[in-house]
Amino acid sequence: MFFKSFANDILAKSEDGAVLEDGIVFSTDSFTVSPLFFAGGDIGKLSICGTCNDLAMMGAKPKYLSVGFIIEEGLDVAILETITESMKKELEINGAVIVSGDTKVVPKGSVDKLFINTSGIGKIECEGISCQNIDEGDIILVSCDIARHGACIFVAREGIELSSDIKSDCASLYPLIKALIDGGIKPKALRDATRGGVAAVLNEWANSSDICIEVEENAIPISDEVKGICEILGFDPMILANEGTFVLAVSPNDAQKALELLRKFEICTNAAIIGKATNAMKKKVILNSNYGTKKPLDMPSGEILPRIC
Amino acid sequence: MFFKSFANDILAKSEDGAVLEDGIVFSTDSFTVSPLFFAGGDIGKLSICGTCNDLAMMGAKPKYLSVGFIIEEGLDVAILETITESMKKELEINGAVIVSGDTKVVPKGSVDKLFINTSGIGKIECEGISCQNIDEGDIILVSCDIARHGACIFVAREGIELSSDIKSDCASLYPLIKALIDGGIKPKALRDATRGGVAAVLNEWANSSDICIEVEENAIPISDEVKGICEILGFDPMILANEGTFVLAVSPNDAQKALELLRKFEICTNAAIIGKATNAMKKKVILNSNYGTKKPLDMPSGEILPRIC
Repeated sequence: MFFKSFANDILAKSEDGAVLEDGIVFSTDSFTVSPLFFAGGDIGKLSICGTCNDLAMMGAKPKYLSVGFIIEEGLDVAILETITESMKKELEINGAVIVSGDTKVVPKGSVDKLFINTSGIGKIECEGISCQNIDEGDIILVSCDIARHGACIFVAREGIELSSDIKSDCASLYPLIKALIDGGIKPKALRDATRGGVAAVLNEWANSSDICIEVEENAIPISDEVKGICEILGFDPMILANEGTFVLAVSPNDAQKALELLRKFEICTNAAIIGKATNAMKKKVILNSNYGTKKPLDMPSGEILPRIC
Repeated sequence: MFFKSFANDILAKSEDGAVLEDGIVFSTDSFTVSPLFFAGGDIGKLSICGTCNDLAMMGAKPKYLSVGFIIEEGLDVAILETITESMKKELEINGAVIVSGDTKVVPKGSVDKLFINTSGIGKIECEGISCQNIDEGDIILVSCDIARHGACIFVAREGIELSSDIKSDCASLYPLIKALIDGGIKPKALRDATRGGVAAVLNEWANSSDICIEVEENAIPISDEVKGICEILGFDPMILANEGTFVLAVSPNDAQKALELLRKFEICTNAAIIGKATNAMKKKVILNSNYGTKKPLDMPSGEILPRIC
């Protein structure tokens, strides 16, 4: 409905950020995560990472952000202060500033504690990154072990006690993208695997680039803790949300170098090559399973967890 | 707290929109109005007018908008369709497009029906408009009879039945500003009198420009209906919200021409010169009352109505 009513050429591209004139990229996200604080972050950190990452995924440096707070009357100011400090810290990592803001305080019951919208403007440092760019033979990487944010929110919300902690991967990705670009890598497509997880990104890419993406199940990095939670609860880690993990498509010549550059970052020590683009079946994602079978990896339908971000 | 944590030179200017490099203006607003539909508009129209007007108030043409919807699970799709159509119509009036969007559906009880954030990017067509620009002798105008939006929301929410209807002034202001600029007017300061009403704008200006603003009570246009509601309920129309009424400061030479240009628009037939900048008392607003007395018109403290926009 929204795409139809608001139709225009820029919106139709369905990229992480809208590419405007003069190399400007523009993106928006609203954050409704519950609980406000989780292992590895809070709604404030998430709100800055989310929008800055969308800009970084277009090869842009995050520069100017706006923020809109919708606050439930009576919310403890100390909570808001902690969240604001998280935002400040994350802005510094991105070298971005908040230049416009809005605050609405609404009566109790009109909103659950706190929602934040951030919108951001970035300047392209590497042109031509697009979900429509992937060619047969291109290599697919993930920057980190997957599904940690989704698993972490689920654990926090359901009060599951674990002997080992699962921390959200929530992180700012611009420094990683800058390192790739400065290292001579030319990313063909980049996308952070948020709602819908890695499966959603791969399906969007296969569709937009009109190719097949084949991934090797045994190459996909997943921590034992996340694997355990997924087995107990029957979740597929490929469709769980990430908030600091991206998928990268590069030409075969760039793949090994990209992997090496990524692995220098503490948050990317588990970066891995997980598959490649082929011509096996147009617009499809295939998972080559550990048992030697080929399974379709479909676009996740609906959301398995509301208020994940 | 937010200004302190996010401190930077652009944010410190406290304008309606942030002026970035290359004549770009950036602004954000979240909309939580209740009820979603009111006489003269709905949350969709309001969300486009609000952000486009903030850009127009900086002398900028609204160009690119982002939109974030936070939707309560179970909201009737027909409601959302009507709201989306209102947005589309208002975007066309501004010649703007939505290029980035985000949708969150949250469980029942996490949000009251629907909140919308819009952020916008505009391109400056008239430079130098600023709340810091007003000099002694400058003339102050309002574009429309005041306080209609606030009165309308109050009436809608409280279910007050009136023999004559009060309609919100909710409207896109860019066409008016363009007419002023094309007509040779050089606005010194422009601000739409939203939350806090005309009193808030005048106090912000007196403070930012380090001057006194004196307004003539009998020159302020207020409809009989709004006057009646305010008398019954004890509201001061000077602090009630507007959503399509702006305050304009111009040099004395421009005042009469500006008034004539504005009055050509159907929504501005009640435009009026209401006062001027003087050196009577720095950073103060004085109301010269109908009884010949001088009253201080203070900055409104708090909000008299929550969820007005």
